[in-house]
Amino acid sequence: MNVLIIGGVAAGTKAAAKLLREDRNLDVTILTKSRDISYAGCGLPYYVGGLIEDRGELIVNTPQSFSRLTGAKVRTGIEVTALDRTAKTVTAKNLDDGSTETLSYDKLVITTGAEPFKPNLPGIDLPGVFCMRTPDDAIGLRDQIEAGTLKRAVVVGGGFIGLEVAENLSAQGVRVTVVEMAPHILPMFDGEIAEYLENHLADQGIMTFTGDRVEEILGDGKVEKVKTSRRAFKADAVIMAAGIRPATGFLKDTGIELMPNGTVKVDAQMRTNDPDIYAAGDCVTVTNRITGQPAWSPMGSSANIEGRLLARHMTGSDVSYPGVLGTGVIRLPAINAGRTGLTEAEATAAGFDAVSVLAAVDDKAHYYPDASSFIIKLVADRQSRRLLGLQVLGKGAVDKVVDIAVMAISMNATLDQLENLDLAYAPPFSTAIHPFSNAVNVLQNKLSGALESMTPAQYLAGEAEGYTVLDFCKAPLITGAEYLAPGDINGPLEGHPLDEKLLLVCNRGRRAYMAQNRLKFYGYRNTRVLEGGMAFNQVTV
Amino acid sequence: MNVLIIGGVAAGTKAAAKLLREDRNLDVTILTKSRDISYAGCGLPYYVGGLIEDRGELIVNTPQSFSRLTGAKVRTGIEVTALDRTAKTVTAKNLDDGSTETLSYDKLVITTGAEPFKPNLPGIDLPGVFCMRTPDDAIGLRDQIEAGTLKRAVVVGGGFIGLEVAENLSAQGVRVTVVEMAPHILPMFDGEIAEYLENHLADQGIMTFTGDRVEEILGDGKVEKVKTSRRAFKADAVIMAAGIRPATGFLKDTGIELMPNGTVKVDAQMRTNDPDIYAAGDCVTVTNRITGQPAWSPMGSSANIEGRLLARHMTGSDVSYPGVLGTGVIRLPAINAGRTGLTEAEATAAGFDAVSVLAAVDDKAHYYPDASSFIIKLVADRQSRRLLGLQVLGKGAVDKVVDIAVMAISMNATLDQLENLDLAYAPPFSTAIHPFSNAVNVLQNKLSGALESMTPAQYLAGEAEGYTVLDFCKAPLITGAEYLAPGDINGPLEGHPLDEKLLLVCNRGRRAYMAQNRLKFYGYRNTRVLEGGMAFNQVTV
Repeated sequence: MNVLIIGGVAAGTKAAAKLLREDRNLDVTILTKSRDISYAGCGLPYYVGGLIEDRGELIVNTPQSFSRLTGAKVRTGIEVTALDRTAKTVTAKNLDDGSTETLSYDKLVITTGAEPFKPNLPGIDLPGVFCMRTPDDAIGLRDQIEAGTLKRAVVVGGGFIGLEVAENLSAQGVRVTVVEMAPHILPMFDGEIAEYLENHLADQGIMTFTGDRVEEILGDGKVEKVKTSRRAFKADAVIMAAGIRPATGFLKDTGIELMPNGTVKVDAQMRTNDPDIYAAGDCVTVTNRITGQPAWSPMGSSANIEGRLLARHMTGSDVSYPGVLGTGVIRLPAINAGRTGLTEAEATAAGFDAVSVLAAVDDKAHYYPDASSFIIKLVADRQSRRLLGLQVLGKGAVDKVVDIAVMAISMNATLDQLENLDLAYAPPFSTAIHPFSNAVNVLQNKLSGALESMTPAQYLAGEAEGYTVLDFCKAPLITGAEYLAPGDINGPLEGHPLDEKLLLVCNRGRRAYMAQNRLKFYGYRNTRVLEGGMAFNQVTV
Repeated sequence: MNVLIIGGVAAGTKAAAKLLREDRNLDVTILTKSRDISYAGCGLPYYVGGLIEDRGELIVNTPQSFSRLTGAKVRTGIEVTALDRTAKTVTAKNLDDGSTETLSYDKLVITTGAEPFKPNLPGIDLPGVFCMRTPDDAIGLRDQIEAGTLKRAVVVGGGFIGLEVAENLSAQGVRVTVVEMAPHILPMFDGEIAEYLENHLADQGIMTFTGDRVEEILGDGKVEKVKTSRRAFKADAVIMAAGIRPATGFLKDTGIELMPNGTVKVDAQMRTNDPDIYAAGDCVTVTNRITGQPAWSPMGSSANIEGRLLARHMTGSDVSYPGVLGTGVIRLPAINAGRTGLTEAEATAAGFDAVSVLAAVDDKAHYYPDASSFIIKLVADRQSRRLLGLQVLGKGAVDKVVDIAVMAISMNATLDQLENLDLAYAPPFSTAIHPFSNAVNVLQNKLSGALESMTPAQYLAGEAEGYTVLDFCKAPLITGAEYLAPGDINGPLEGHPLDEKLLLVCNRGRRAYMAQNRLKFYGYRNTRVLEGGMAFNQVTV
């Protein structure tokens, strides 16, 4: 059987290698436009930041070494320009000499990936405008840093790639500004989390301008200035990270079913609507594991899983892709952020009776040298009590918290099943009550009514209007608010009638919870604990 | 209702605080022999190592602050010496003046914990012999370090506590020897894993002597020498970490059912055989979540879960403890180790048809600065394909890998359910194919027959007898073995008949797996990949 694979980065090379391990009699050929295959696309921002020193480290395999190791043929510099499903052929153009040839297939695999979206702006082709998709992009940008000609950069787009580049440029001493069209950076997080990160990045010297749009790039022979709908910035470089587009143009009018965003529609076996044509990686739409709705997951991790799975299916295994959770994790200056499953907004939009809690908890034993906090937001379905999503921020191992939630959500765990877990504890790693368990307990307390709280999102939306703020921090922290310790509550509070609306605020939420417990005992009926306390919220009186 | 709690460290304080939050009308009193309550027992080795600078950080709450915060009464310096279940009273001895009193209870909670086992050896009471159970132990040991009189130390016992102390002493420049009675240190790991760690510790300057027993501690007014059944060591200090014993002596002849090891037997609601008496923490035996068999889990994490759970049950919640997985994690010099669930030996002993695999995989993107390897051993049941246990070693975040497995095992996940998980990936945190997924895939390949391998335990047991070793490392590494690259295999190998027994060894296992795939294609019938390759095994020809 003759298998043609169009595209040779993550999904394509994984599929080729696995196909030949499953059945060495297959004739497998990778066709790729590029000179490189199997390069570390996710590592490019870290090459810019100098964490990856040598460009050679970006290349996982050369075409030769890959071919020798796997037995797949690799043809570089070949662009597939057309597909004839009836004849089962593709038209391939040799990018060196411009010649074309017709190649036939028994099975075709489309792993053409995606390309950076380059809006048609004045100045977009000026030297100093970069994308972040191929090794050449990263090398060009670092060359400019090393030449000392990059003092100010504008990153267009505040998603994962844009912020990874921003972080690495900032670490190199470049002054970075991020411009994002949407109301917040990182749209895969709930708004209040994104807003927290925007403030954090500002503290770290990276300014983010949201709800703004680049209109023009100006300069005399090279980038000098960026004009947006609301501002203008001096800049020595512009990094376009305003999204990607699937590289599926050649499939137009072939009858291969595409999604509205241009990605290939596939089933749970990674087959297109043509049973002899598979697709995987950044150029396909898969499904969300929770909702079953279409989901685009242009991630190296998904590409590998999908490439492996289609190879197993094509060689006769009974396999099925359960779909993605939109998992993501990012290192930012002095903070990490991760997420999986549904945000509160997504859960509500998907029809769940979503309930959330935001808990600020220790990430490891408080006395251990680099101990810090996690901000964990859990989203669950009130009815089924099923965990739907998690978002986490912190200086430490946010990926651990995400991965626990990935496992839980993938197994359809309810909050009750997430209690009393024997998770790993030793002081260098965690807390005796595990941070994840701690957050689960807080949400359980909220659902049982033991904790009556206000979420940061509700606070931002003005729901504290009419509440009197009481400051229960370890030491007074809120200017203008009455200060109390939880232990001070041994009866009704002087000057505070039992029906008064009281917003209880402490450093992280725990002391206010204990205070609420006492206040309720003494008859207070309208108290609310502010989730995340001063660690997350900016409270003013 | 009047609740007496005997013991005020993790389980006791957690139970007290939760009881009063659930029902502030309760009259809750903690009775404790000690002067401190709620101290960070797990932090003591790190105080010795100087990571925790100030002794004040070891104390979570003073009796006064705890009492003020929770509303529980705390009486320190009180030892309970007798229990009268009929009268529902305890006899309490005041350790200051020797007086006794009788205290009545409606509900009693036993959280007396455990005490270090001090064998009755000549010299055991010499100055310079330490335990590691209370803040005073740790303070005494560090004082000796700071006084400059501690150059050599012998740690008796190679369990978690013993090795944590060894690591911290070693970090302080003390020359440390560990003596362990059992055939291996860390008996909660499979033997080949423990042996790997013994070799690693030796490389790091910590000598472990197993199958050896301390017989006498010698010295003139202070520790000078330790005599074992096989050796003698100079020593300025001896740290006794040879196990703990539940502090349940006062329960003898009370009719409270105890286990053979002296721990209190409790049900899933943490009740003893007396419905008015609960117990939790280091002094109880609970159940193993997988086997349902009795399990002793003297861990701060279990104590907190159990204390919280009994408080909820006593105040009317319908709760049930699913039991423990024996989860543990430890930081050692230049390596971390973690485990959960059943070892291969435990799984076999419990009647499972245990199958295991040991995989050496990247812990994060190979090009990222502090990237290293994980050694992951998975244990599963061949019949049900259920994951039963995981052991992991590595310089990086072994706790993450453990916690994923805890979640999986707690949800009774099968290996098939553990494929295609959308776990977190970005280069600073993980690999595109997640290390956990990678190990799962290797075990699936072994179960399907795609991988035919020899485990390190089988190799150690001599099963490679009669095999010809072929070296498939990236560069020749095995003296005396024939060297080949996987890509060299394009037909039968000269000089190697198709029925020859071939042991395929590479750096970690992956290249040998690819080589095996090719060899099988060309007709070889008796090949085995050595799991973990040279990264884990010491291969000689």
